[in-house]
Amino acid sequence: MNEKMSSKRSEAEQLSFIWKNIERIATCMMTTCHGPQLRARPMRGIARPNENAIVFLTARSTDKPHEIAANPNACLCFGDVSSNTFISLSGAIAVTEDTERARELWGRAQDSYFPQGPADPDAVLLTFTPKSGEYWDAPSNPVVIAIEFIRASVVGERPLLGDNAEVTMRTPLLPPDR
Amino acid sequence: MNEKMSSKRSEAEQLSFIWKNIERIATCMMTTCHGPQLRARPMRGIARPNENAIVFLTARSTDKPHEIAANPNACLCFGDVSSNTFISLSGAIAVTEDTERARELWGRAQDSYFPQGPADPDAVLLTFTPKSGEYWDAPSNPVVIAIEFIRASVVGERPLLGDNAEVTMRTPLLPPDR
Repeated sequence: MNEKMSSKRSEAEQLSFIWKNIERIATCMMTTCHGPQLRARPMRGIARPNENAIVFLTARSTDKPHEIAANPNACLCFGDVSSNTFISLSGAIAVTEDTERARELWGRAQDSYFPQGPADPDAVLLTFTPKSGEYWDAPSNPVVIAIEFIRASVVGERPLLGDNAEVTMRTPLLPPDR
Repeated sequence: MNEKMSSKRSEAEQLSFIWKNIERIATCMMTTCHGPQLRARPMRGIARPNENAIVFLTARSTDKPHEIAANPNACLCFGDVSSNTFISLSGAIAVTEDTERARELWGRAQDSYFPQGPADPDAVLLTFTPKSGEYWDAPSNPVVIAIEFIRASVVGERPLLGDNAEVTMRTPLLPPDR
């Protein structure tokens, strides 16, 4: 997808769009460095827009805490192929011990993996702090896309397919529009 | 998503599953290194299973060729939140000049961006060669998931939610099951 896009949203609206879609899509691919290689795995985190953070509960016995200790840089990719919405967040992950926060994030899924509950010694929190982000919000309706391709070709322009912006990440300036 | 999963597929079936879903999902997030930071963008490539490659047409004037020259390691993430299918491919990207191949991959979308056609000096091919891959093929039906959570909790096991495997990438051993 190399469509030339531009944004009609204000910076506050761009941040709000990113945080809203992080919460909506929920499952991301978390890419970390495994030596020189990049690898990703699906993770479902809890967005904390007011802290500019996304928090994940995971097992200490997986590869992630070791990879993060060696190199904390990470990228979270949120993608919804049906609505043609994609978000890339660049930042770093910290491995944190915080039983209180683990308790707050706890759900039925966690009970199955950590039988000792939020104080389970294998349960650990990963706190991702995004530094910069980019989103692509393209139309998913093929008729809309076709009409824009025809318009662009008639006027000799590149098609404008939706909205794209790079954003310096921070807490949202507007309440998320739900 | 920290579900403990295991695979009932043979190695040939695992490779076939990965290549089939790469073609089906089509749009991936391509993560590259921008200095120490990791960043991603949505890209729609052409899978070439028989060459163990995924090929992308892009504009030389974007950041990607520079990032790849500095560090060719990349990760492609394919995700379909509606079917709960996720794939991570680790490998490297080569920037290649191949007007013949560009011609073969050419479509209407390309015409809008590269008015001079496959020989447009701004059009460049990115060939991604996956080295290793991992997939997560989880049930998307909430009733199926709930029943497995109940079963696991009754027998004191972690729930088995679908199929997961790490695969050494190569050309598929079986024709993709379509």
